[in-house]
Amino acid sequence: MHMVFKSPIRVAIVLFLWLYCFPLKSQKLSTNQYETLSREYALASIPELRAFLSIPNNALIEEHVENNLRFLELAFEKRRFSTQRLPSTSRTAFFAERIVQKSLPTVLVYMHFDGQPVDARQWNQADPYQPVLKRPLADGSYETVDWQTITNTLPDEYRVFARSASDDKSPIIMFLAALDALQSAGLEPSFNLRVILDPEEEQGSKSMPEVIDQFGDLLSADHMVIFDGPVHDSNSPTLVFGCRGIAGIELTVYGPRTPQHSGHFGNYAPNPALRLAQLLSSMKDEGGKVTIPGFYDGIDLTPEIKEILAAVPDDVAQIKKRVGIAETDKVGANYQEAMQYPSLNIRGFRSGWVGAEARTIVPEKAVATLDIRLVPESDGTRLVKLVKEHILAQGYYLIEDRDPSEEERLTHDKIIRFDHDPSEMWKAFNTPIHSKTGEWLYHSLKNVHQQEVARIRLAGGSVPIAFFVNKLDIPAVLVPLVNPDNNQHSPNENIRMGHYRNGIKTILGVMTSSIE
Amino acid sequence: MHMVFKSPIRVAIVLFLWLYCFPLKSQKLSTNQYETLSREYALASIPELRAFLSIPNNALIEEHVENNLRFLELAFEKRRFSTQRLPSTSRTAFFAERIVQKSLPTVLVYMHFDGQPVDARQWNQADPYQPVLKRPLADGSYETVDWQTITNTLPDEYRVFARSASDDKSPIIMFLAALDALQSAGLEPSFNLRVILDPEEEQGSKSMPEVIDQFGDLLSADHMVIFDGPVHDSNSPTLVFGCRGIAGIELTVYGPRTPQHSGHFGNYAPNPALRLAQLLSSMKDEGGKVTIPGFYDGIDLTPEIKEILAAVPDDVAQIKKRVGIAETDKVGANYQEAMQYPSLNIRGFRSGWVGAEARTIVPEKAVATLDIRLVPESDGTRLVKLVKEHILAQGYYLIEDRDPSEEERLTHDKIIRFDHDPSEMWKAFNTPIHSKTGEWLYHSLKNVHQQEVARIRLAGGSVPIAFFVNKLDIPAVLVPLVNPDNNQHSPNENIRMGHYRNGIKTILGVMTSSIE
Repeated sequence: MHMVFKSPIRVAIVLFLWLYCFPLKSQKLSTNQYETLSREYALASIPELRAFLSIPNNALIEEHVENNLRFLELAFEKRRFSTQRLPSTSRTAFFAERIVQKSLPTVLVYMHFDGQPVDARQWNQADPYQPVLKRPLADGSYETVDWQTITNTLPDEYRVFARSASDDKSPIIMFLAALDALQSAGLEPSFNLRVILDPEEEQGSKSMPEVIDQFGDLLSADHMVIFDGPVHDSNSPTLVFGCRGIAGIELTVYGPRTPQHSGHFGNYAPNPALRLAQLLSSMKDEGGKVTIPGFYDGIDLTPEIKEILAAVPDDVAQIKKRVGIAETDKVGANYQEAMQYPSLNIRGFRSGWVGAEARTIVPEKAVATLDIRLVPESDGTRLVKLVKEHILAQGYYLIEDRDPSEEERLTHDKIIRFDHDPSEMWKAFNTPIHSKTGEWLYHSLKNVHQQEVARIRLAGGSVPIAFFVNKLDIPAVLVPLVNPDNNQHSPNENIRMGHYRNGIKTILGVMTSSIE
Repeated sequence: MHMVFKSPIRVAIVLFLWLYCFPLKSQKLSTNQYETLSREYALASIPELRAFLSIPNNALIEEHVENNLRFLELAFEKRRFSTQRLPSTSRTAFFAERIVQKSLPTVLVYMHFDGQPVDARQWNQADPYQPVLKRPLADGSYETVDWQTITNTLPDEYRVFARSASDDKSPIIMFLAALDALQSAGLEPSFNLRVILDPEEEQGSKSMPEVIDQFGDLLSADHMVIFDGPVHDSNSPTLVFGCRGIAGIELTVYGPRTPQHSGHFGNYAPNPALRLAQLLSSMKDEGGKVTIPGFYDGIDLTPEIKEILAAVPDDVAQIKKRVGIAETDKVGANYQEAMQYPSLNIRGFRSGWVGAEARTIVPEKAVATLDIRLVPESDGTRLVKLVKEHILAQGYYLIEDRDPSEEERLTHDKIIRFDHDPSEMWKAFNTPIHSKTGEWLYHSLKNVHQQEVARIRLAGGSVPIAFFVNKLDIPAVLVPLVNPDNNQHSPNENIRMGHYRNGIKTILGVMTSSIE
């Protein structure tokens, strides 16, 4: 730009106008630039990805955590972050901070650097901690490719196989690559960055409650972004605004003190398996809807929310085919709606023996384990209480966390044991789609990809992050980046290079988008 | 008796009158004689009981069978029986016959000489095949007693511990002892005797169908008496007029092809454990009554039958206490009535995992194994068909003896696998209480014991004998003799000497009672 104004006042006015009008635009990149930069830095970051994946990261082994911490310190300091270890009585978390400008909002980024333990024998490579580059063949299998073949170009269909290739080391490298790309364009992130890397997410984030208690101030922020998990099955850019929580219940219905001969006692000693079946079936209807009064109280899917849910491009036929079912439960009008309601699921039940082991008995007890997936509108304690009240209404004598006494057995006809551990209950979390955080991320993803974004109001699963989000009380949104078929938690975990490149592009879009 | 008539005609008339009036009486013994003889021959037969119990009798071991056969040949030949081995492709049965007088009716006696396999480590004696004499102590335990202590008297509370002490070797020795007692009184049995001793009853009487096919003529008789099993809990003299049969069904309800994450699929993928619970609970009501239409068809408990059933001195409070239940099912007005109806019992069910192994899944399938106890009025094939029709009426797509295909999974919402093996179905058998056989045994037991007889119309359990009885088509009644607390099939099996003595008395009563 050529300067035509000379006086200091004029200069000041021009500077003011320039800063006023273009602070965002100055930060933004063209669609073309996003594409070029993400391609360039995807390729450029491969050596760092490879190096990071080569460091074993089983959180159960302290040395693994330590080695990853060292790598992270170097990597983040290189990108002008100040770093800090956040120790706990369990493992040590990693913290990094980069202040762009004090007046800008602060975004807390959460990722994790540990991975699921490995069983090397089940992998199609010598060592899950020695990343291998592969390309798909026509028959659906993969063939190992020399790393040299990607010196100049990174084919989308190639994949890197290693533990944590997707969950959750590659997002960390994508994040660093996006910062490098940004720097090469002479830009700064549009907000201050705080980064917390969980050392043992796969072990239930055991260290995080203590870390939050001890270092809560460090972690305070205006918004929180979680880079973890796979994008929507449709491969659309994806935002996840919350996750369901979980509560567990185990029910034990008692029959005769010991198994009784089904000839001598069939028709006489009440069968606990039948009673449990009757109890369980009293809780839900044929369509899988919970019939316990009040179970769905407080959930109000407005037409606006329903519209957003219906916009998620779920392919029902594909889901059915993948899962192997002809029909779905009838809890919601579609998959996304179904996830907005708490579930009451039989995880398993057991009584006596079946198959070749079957014995001609009236069993002595029947056990069922249930999980309730919680949504933000329904408090877990309340739902557990509703289930308990329902059981009592069926005429059961209910005891908690113990077996019945001899006297109770001879006094009460229908006896049930109710086990529920409140300490193992995780709350749901949910950030409104139309919140500042939600709108910022939605528009940045839509802009960078020039494509509609799949907005998942509530993911069905329950994640340790929920505790983190609820405790810190920062509006948080998950921005998943990796391919859905990444074999997360399983042998042959991988990251598809097309998704790796797109992930860098997504983060670039987020970094360059101011929060209004 | 002093003779006062001299002429041949007078002598003939007197002889005729004497024979006319006293043919039964001549055979009968006084109450006192029954008591004295049974005491004497209980004591006298102990060495033979000891010797017989010392011969191992696991039917899985051919040598065991052979050794017992040799013992039996000698023992029965000594009592003027002609004996015969009845071989089969499985084991060899034992047959013995004693013709008293051609014109008399013939009674076929069934017992078995094999025992359940043993695990010697679980017994309170060195060798389950080395009988040990014990007496009870005040604390309920038993103390070994030298056999010499019973040279002159046999205390009722003493017990002999050994495999088959009760099931079913002691009835064989009681039978022989009764014959010896009869002989000592100068009497003959009131009927011709045929005896069949099963070599492998504890293995499901595998050889008997073949034996019946091959040697059916040998086994023909007018009445059949089975000496096996314990007397009624009340220790009353007991007759059992039949046993329930059995049919098995296994049900498998299918869910997703493999277990699915309960977060992502709770409320969406139908849960097979819930569906199976709903299906099972649709079959029976709260009181345990089957609600499938037609299940109880054909059963008509007349006031007369109900009276006999009600007369059995079952101690409900005692049963409840022993089993550990507060209430019973509501199928019949009492225990005996409950046994007159077919049962539909859940032997076991299984889906997913419970307890510490529980996983957060929607399980892929749920399995339940059922048994139906059959009564004479209800054909097993018909009942199995009713269950199948009921399942179809619940909207299930039913497949038999196989898993669903991929196409079936994607086409049918509710899929169930129905397994039923008709070859493993045993029929019930039942001899009318007021039949000739029934009346003969009832009056002989009542007479010898001077006590009311517990008449069990149908025992709940299913026994291999049923096949035998149905095939031979001879009215059959079980005359159980041993103590109910004999630990049958378990370690520390025993026979109580009071029951042993009373058993000999019962058989003496039967032997001396003509069949009118």
